[in-house]
Amino acid sequence: MTIKVLAICGSLRARSTNRGLLRFAQANAPTGMKIHIADLLDVPFYNADLAEKPAAVSTLLQEFAEADALLLACPEYNYSLAPALKNALDWASREPDNHLLRGKPVAILGSAGGMGSSRSQYHLRQVCVYLDLHPLNKPEVFANAFSGAFDHEGNLLDQKIQDNIRQLLQALSLWQKQLSLPVG
Amino acid sequence: MTIKVLAICGSLRARSTNRGLLRFAQANAPTGMKIHIADLLDVPFYNADLAEKPAAVSTLLQEFAEADALLLACPEYNYSLAPALKNALDWASREPDNHLLRGKPVAILGSAGGMGSSRSQYHLRQVCVYLDLHPLNKPEVFANAFSGAFDHEGNLLDQKIQDNIRQLLQALSLWQKQLSLPVG
Amino acid sequence: MTIKVLAICGSLRARSTNRGLLRFAQANAPTGMKIHIADLLDVPFYNADLAEKPAAVSTLLQEFAEADALLLACPEYNYSLAPALKNALDWASREPDNHLLRGKPVAILGSAGGMGSSRSQYHLRQVCVYLDLHPLNKPEVFANAFSGAFDHEGNLLDQKIQDNIRQLLQALSLWQKQLSLPVG
Amino acid sequence: MTIKVLAICGSLRARSTNRGLLRFAQANAPTGMKIHIADLLDVPFYNADLAEKPAAVSTLLQEFAEADALLLACPEYNYSLAPALKNALDWASREPDNHLLRGKPVAILGSAGGMGSSRSQYHLRQVCVYLDLHPLNKPEVFANAFSGAFDHEGNLLDQKIQDNIRQLLQALSLWQKQLSLPVG
Repeated sequence: MTIKVLAICGSLRARSTNRGLLRFAQANAPTGMKIHIADLLDVPFYNADLAEKPAAVSTLLQEFAEADALLLACPEYNYSLAPALKNALDWASREPDNHLLRGKPVAILGSAGGMGSSRSQYHLRQVCVYLDLHPLNKPEVFANAFSGAFDHEGNLLDQKIQDNIRQLLQALSLWQKQLSLPVG
Repeated sequence: MTIKVLAICGSLRARSTNRGLLRFAQANAPTGMKIHIADLLDVPFYNADLAEKPAAVSTLLQEFAEADALLLACPEYNYSLAPALKNALDWASREPDNHLLRGKPVAILGSAGGMGSSRSQYHLRQVCVYLDLHPLNKPEVFANAFSGAFDHEGNLLDQKIQDNIRQLLQALSLWQKQLSLPVG
Repeated sequence: MTIKVLAICGSLRARSTNRGLLRFAQANAPTGMKIHIADLLDVPFYNADLAEKPAAVSTLLQEFAEADALLLACPEYNYSLAPALKNALDWASREPDNHLLRGKPVAILGSAGGMGSSRSQYHLRQVCVYLDLHPLNKPEVFANAFSGAFDHEGNLLDQKIQDNIRQLLQALSLWQKQLSLPVG
Repeated sequence: MTIKVLAICGSLRARSTNRGLLRFAQANAPTGMKIHIADLLDVPFYNADLAEKPAAVSTLLQEFAEADALLLACPEYNYSLAPALKNALDWASREPDNHLLRGKPVAILGSAGGMGSSRSQYHLRQVCVYLDLHPLNKPEVFANAFSGAFDHEGNLLDQKIQDNIRQLLQALSLWQKQLSLPVG
């Protein structure tokens, strides 16, 4: 059985290093895992006044519905979350009974300056509490965006981070299985 | 001399209770303070790929430039920041040398369920560290959005919160003066 | 099979309302769960210079070793953790390979002013990431210590919070089973 | 006029690198600043049941009373605060009207693994909100404890961090002056 993973990149930039992390993950998913990267370019800010859901939102929500697990690429903007990533989760959280998110396993990774987005990743983890998502504790993936780890297209070159991501996906695969086992 | 305050509402909804807090503040600003509420409806997600600044962004940045202080109405979406508020600060932070924000005093208030947005306000305070903004410590303003404190248009009815906001604005006025005094 | 739960109270005060939460939990544990409350009174601050482990620490570490799950009563001191609770976890974390904590399920509850310790509980959850502990997302238990919910001895009187704790323990029981199932 | 700074080290270990940061600061204080390092070894956990204040606590509180500013060396234990540092602030916060802390300027620095204690420093900043302390935003001082920056006695060797601390103390000096100016 294939684990379907929805990957979301908090940066909208085409050559984003966070997007590069996701491309690497997608190309190196373990056997039995398929990773789809969401397109947020046309997803507007959540606004309860909107008369109807934009098409890009409907597509995104459908992708959430089909996902067995989430892979969140979490940039750090000014010591907190990238609005586009948070906004995608906010949209998904508005569905009845939180059924698009509730109980799903999550893997987090991120690229940023100095500390590789660690500050924003802990904000993201607090969001997961409310959304009843289950992020992996380990490994944490903090990629320094300015250390030669990426080329100019945002492709991941650094072997240590590559290994880190492979371990993350293996752990996600196990974690998804663990959380899916029937209890009692 | 008048203190110019730029107010930003994290919720885009017209009848938002957070907007109601700002309207109350605007109508009850102390002598010597003028509060302008920014319009974020046409401000897109920050994206380094955008060829040029949209008009709504240019207007917003101009308002930041003219502001002596900020008043931030901070909703809580899923235990963290409203993307529209964070995005407004992210746009402002991209100007050279952070000159639109650096050193400015800030007052924070918020309306939300249960705990009145406290969880997101601490995330906002962490953002202020990087942006070199100086938020007031006290009073903190946490309005419970579902307790009859607001009418259906989002207007603030609760007298205790009204007093709270009056104290916040007085404190902001003093804080702005304190931070403006020439040292040495 | 009995689930052994180690309960830790962050407040050292005999009549602490957080201790009252744990006493209620202990007396109302679901079938198949046994709750032991640790005694921290003689546990000193962790200090790498200490020549040997004090007896109270050895006892505590033995209790961690035997525990299948943790129940953490988390007061809020000045918007963050009670040092005695953090210190107990710090001691446990120093054992080889983090084997006393790694992978264990956790339930969190707390009593405090205004927001019932929510601010400190999120700090505790960040600690759990490093320690590779798995806290429940829901229910969260926030007891207001000053609202008549407790008597003068710190005993829990409030029925809604009592129900909340019963649900927490049921959830912990299921969560412990879920995390114990063999994968693959 | 001399600015009296009370320095507190969250680690109790004699050869702590955080203590080394404070020793360097003490020896390199700018003209007009005098730094005293508190001794926490005999300060017990705060406990409302204690019949009277231990002598070490009385001494510590006297030092807080005399301080114009605080310099906090913030280790990171398991992604949050060192209990001894938090506990010192907790004791000080129990004095009437928070008069030992209220309004005082603070400089924060820290040494730890990987990210130099950044995770715990943001928890400390949240504590400062409640205590009405005014931490500097910049510079932030994050020292990696395991990178050769310190000798085996915990003395600071790294020149970049040394410069960082000199800037921190200069900024603290200005900040203390700013906050002391009479308004209106």
